Amino acid sequence: MATIRVPNQVPSPAQDSETLNQAFRGWGTDEKAIIRVLGQRDESQRKRIRESYREIYGKDLIDDLSSELSGDFMKAVVSWTYDPAERDARLVNKILKDKKKKKSLENLKVIVEISCTTSPNHLIAVRKAYCSLFDSSLEEDIASSLPFPLAKFLVTLASSFRYEKDKTDAEVATIEAAMLREAIEKKQLDHDHVLYILGTRSIYQLRETFVAYKKNYGVTIDKDVDGCPGDADLRSLLQMAIFCIDTPEKHFAKVVRDSIEGFGTDEDSLTRAIVTRAEIDLMKVRGEYFNMYNTSMDNAITGDISGDYKDFIITLLGSKI
Amino acid sequence: MATIRVPNQVPSPAQDSETLNQAFRGWGTDEKAIIRVLGQRDESQRKRIRESYREIYGKDLIDDLSSELSGDFMKAVVSWTYDPAERDARLVNKILKDKKKKKSLENLKVIVEISCTTSPNHLIAVRKAYCSLFDSSLEEDIASSLPFPLAKFLVTLASSFRYEKDKTDAEVATIEAAMLREAIEKKQLDHDHVLYILGTRSIYQLRETFVAYKKNYGVTIDKDVDGCPGDADLRSLLQMAIFCIDTPEKHFAKVVRDSIEGFGTDEDSLTRAIVTRAEIDLMKVRGEYFNMYNTSMDNAITGDISGDYKDFIITLLGSKI
Repeated sequence: MATIRVPNQVPSPAQDSETLNQAFRGWGTDEKAIIRVLGQRDESQRKRIRESYREIYGKDLIDDLSSELSGDFMKAVVSWTYDPAERDARLVNKILKDKKKKKSLENLKVIVEISCTTSPNHLIAVRKAYCSLFDSSLEEDIASSLPFPLAKFLVTLASSFRYEKDKTDAEVATIEAAMLREAIEKKQLDHDHVLYILGTRSIYQLRETFVAYKKNYGVTIDKDVDGCPGDADLRSLLQMAIFCIDTPEKHFAKVVRDSIEGFGTDEDSLTRAIVTRAEIDLMKVRGEYFNMYNTSMDNAITGDISGDYKDFIITLLGSKI
Repeated sequence: MATIRVPNQVPSPAQDSETLNQAFRGWGTDEKAIIRVLGQRDESQRKRIRESYREIYGKDLIDDLSSELSGDFMKAVVSWTYDPAERDARLVNKILKDKKKKKSLENLKVIVEISCTTSPNHLIAVRKAYCSLFDSSLEEDIASSLPFPLAKFLVTLASSFRYEKDKTDAEVATIEAAMLREAIEKKQLDHDHVLYILGTRSIYQLRETFVAYKKNYGVTIDKDVDGCPGDADLRSLLQMAIFCIDTPEKHFAKVVRDSIEGFGTDEDSLTRAIVTRAEIDLMKVRGEYFNMYNTSMDNAITGDISGDYKDFIITLLGSKI
């Protein structure tokens, strides 16, 4: 369900490195060549190119991309070239080290997104990368830079290593739907039951619990949370977690939609959605986008952006430039 | 600082497998041969022997050991032969699946021990092994089988992936010592600050925080916690976590001591301490034991046990049988 297209015949990492290095040389940069190479290689191929580039030229490809390219195009290509775990670790660190006294809620939602839409092994890899890069653990940086109960909620989500197989227990779903309902009725969104059910159960089990919730109480848990008074930020993060767990493709369709709707484009969000999902489920996101907004996601995106950035994004969407 | 002794010349895994299989054959079992092979191989060597055994004989070495040996000797050899992460995952699962309504506090302390005395990578490996073996995650089983606040505390400890390098921040130590002190003064051992400071900070940072605590308040945090009223089980687990983080070698010296002191021996605890630390820091544990009890750990152990079990344990302690 990935959208990127890897050619049948792929040059060796050394050949790709040479093409990239060639593209950086002389007057001007050959952006098209860079897009053709990096935009059509999968994760392990990009990893090998980066290793090979370092061996041949003694430099980090990321550094050369950063200095040779610019703007949103540069940010997208660099993000795509990073190992995915390193990419997410850097993103979370940037959010947590934001000097503003109150962190932006939109940014905190990104931490929820990373915690709830990626695989358990990826999330562990992000935590490992975080420790290697920043001399601290991701969890301690969350716990020490955010107010409780936001910190509690995010530490629990980010520390999860959920059971991954599609095996659920209907009885547990009923019981835990009731526990969630009780906490919401008591207006305690930071109740331990909410925290630990959402933070430890498998994605499949939680989806069954959400179904049981709707069935037994005649309302979706999301709507019930929405009507709950109290800490607005916590409510918002909780809803985001439920949405990401329940329907990650819809979540990313919405991220894309929000990034291009209205005047101007939120390139950072658009890049994040496309880059992080292009190798996972972007095809499904495209389908959900059509279901939700009755229009083509690819057309909507391409109508909103331009230049090399556009060429790169449509390459990740599977088009040829 | 390991105590086990691997011979200079080690037979191939296939040769070792053959020796083991030979030891199982005919009337009676050659326990000495089993001890000589497995008791003198390190983790990766044992892993290769188990793989090789399966290839040659089409059976799991663990199954053959379980059926050919018996009692505490069998349990110790099997525990030693498991991959360490699998061993700990099985141990935690047994504790959590204990049918008794109230779990034994001593058993819950073992979960604290595993969470606070092993490396971050080991703890992640335990969680991965747990998911593979038991169709659920370690955290969800803790959260769903224990009362809060014990569940909260154990989920946080078991989900940790602490920063591992010896880099500390004196200012953070002072601030967090004050936060811990405040929670204890308010008699709130389940305060979020207690939970998240102990559950997310690195071992080195926490040790510095404990030093700051003693310096600034004239009393050790352990003593302060001891005098705090409230949930006795939580207090006990909290003290165990502090002890394990601060001085893991002293903790294991005490486990050994408690297991052999008085009438009878607690073989399960003794085996756990020796088997889990023989390749890590049992030499240091031996030193701490002497400092704490003014007597030789090895002599105390060997005076308390007998037979093949004794031969196996002293082999792990570095003696030749």
